[in-house]
Amino acid sequence: MKKKSKAQRQKELIEMLQADPFYTDEELASLFEVSIQTIRLDRMSLNIPELRERVKNIAEAESSKVKTLGIKEITGEIIDLSVGKLGISMLEITEDMLYSKTNTLKDTYIFSMADSLAMAIVDAPKVIMRFANVKCLKLIEQKDRLIAKAEIYKNVGTKHYVKVVINNKAQEQIFRGKFIFEELD
Amino acid sequence: MKKKSKAQRQKELIEMLQADPFYTDEELASLFEVSIQTIRLDRMSLNIPELRERVKNIAEAESSKVKTLGIKEITGEIIDLSVGKLGISMLEITEDMLYSKTNTLKDTYIFSMADSLAMAIVDAPKVIMRFANVKCLKLIEQKDRLIAKAEIYKNVGTKHYVKVVINNKAQEQIFRGKFIFEELD
Repeated sequence: MKKKSKAQRQKELIEMLQADPFYTDEELASLFEVSIQTIRLDRMSLNIPELRERVKNIAEAESSKVKTLGIKEITGEIIDLSVGKLGISMLEITEDMLYSKTNTLKDTYIFSMADSLAMAIVDAPKVIMRFANVKCLKLIEQKDRLIAKAEIYKNVGTKHYVKVVINNKAQEQIFRGKFIFEELD
Repeated sequence: MKKKSKAQRQKELIEMLQADPFYTDEELASLFEVSIQTIRLDRMSLNIPELRERVKNIAEAESSKVKTLGIKEITGEIIDLSVGKLGISMLEITEDMLYSKTNTLKDTYIFSMADSLAMAIVDAPKVIMRFANVKCLKLIEQKDRLIAKAEIYKNVGTKHYVKVVINNKAQEQIFRGKFIFEELD
């Protein structure tokens, strides 16, 4: 395949990042068959911030739409969020999050990461977490980076059903859970 | 019924508190048909500390037997504990435990209170919380005092099944859950 001209590449780059702002420089370089350096220069000349910065901007804009709880009450950092639909968050495991006797991650962090993200995407001002069914598939035995994905899969009357999956850095599923939040007056 | 002599009452008081140290002064007064004052004087002359102090002493002695996690990693104060059997803990809700937007108790405190107490009574050095099925029956909308009771109801191979119930000060059930902890090498 013939390489695209710089102008063509930059035009497509803008379109791609508008459609999906979560492409990394590495992914873009591979898609356009150019070096990462070239992508960085493209971004600079087009005034497009790097992924981390783009994500932060999106997350901040969406975060203001969360009704159920304060953003600082979410365990983890919001990566993506669409109230009423889905959310993605990230949690870096640090030493103080491990049980002192076994050096494994405290249950409370896994549960809170899932529960607070699930609650954040519920589009209602006041809810009660009515029911949760959770499974831990793997023990976290060291510092790691967790990624949680929450998705509303059903709304029935005042009840909102949310599925949450948490993966570790190695892409292993370590948790999955279902939550039901019920709206209250 | 003729009232017991002071010597007889004090003898029985000692026996009763050895069998069950959780009698309050009010309960003892009612059982012996004397005033609370009389019970307090009995305790003082017999060098028996008040309930809160007795409970603390017992809890501290039992706490040293907990294998799975550190005592400070339990959410709430241990009131009673028998590793391999049951546990009771208390949590005073304070302002900082409420969601900023709705002034209701954060889910993480309810879950952690139940989960950490359940884990504490599991008689194994290293476990994973494999599964939890939890229900919230009532939203906590103010400062309150929660009492959690956890009980091991089944042991199957390396799996320990624990039931937890949490009541508020008004004795309303606000949470119940079942947990499965699995022993790991």
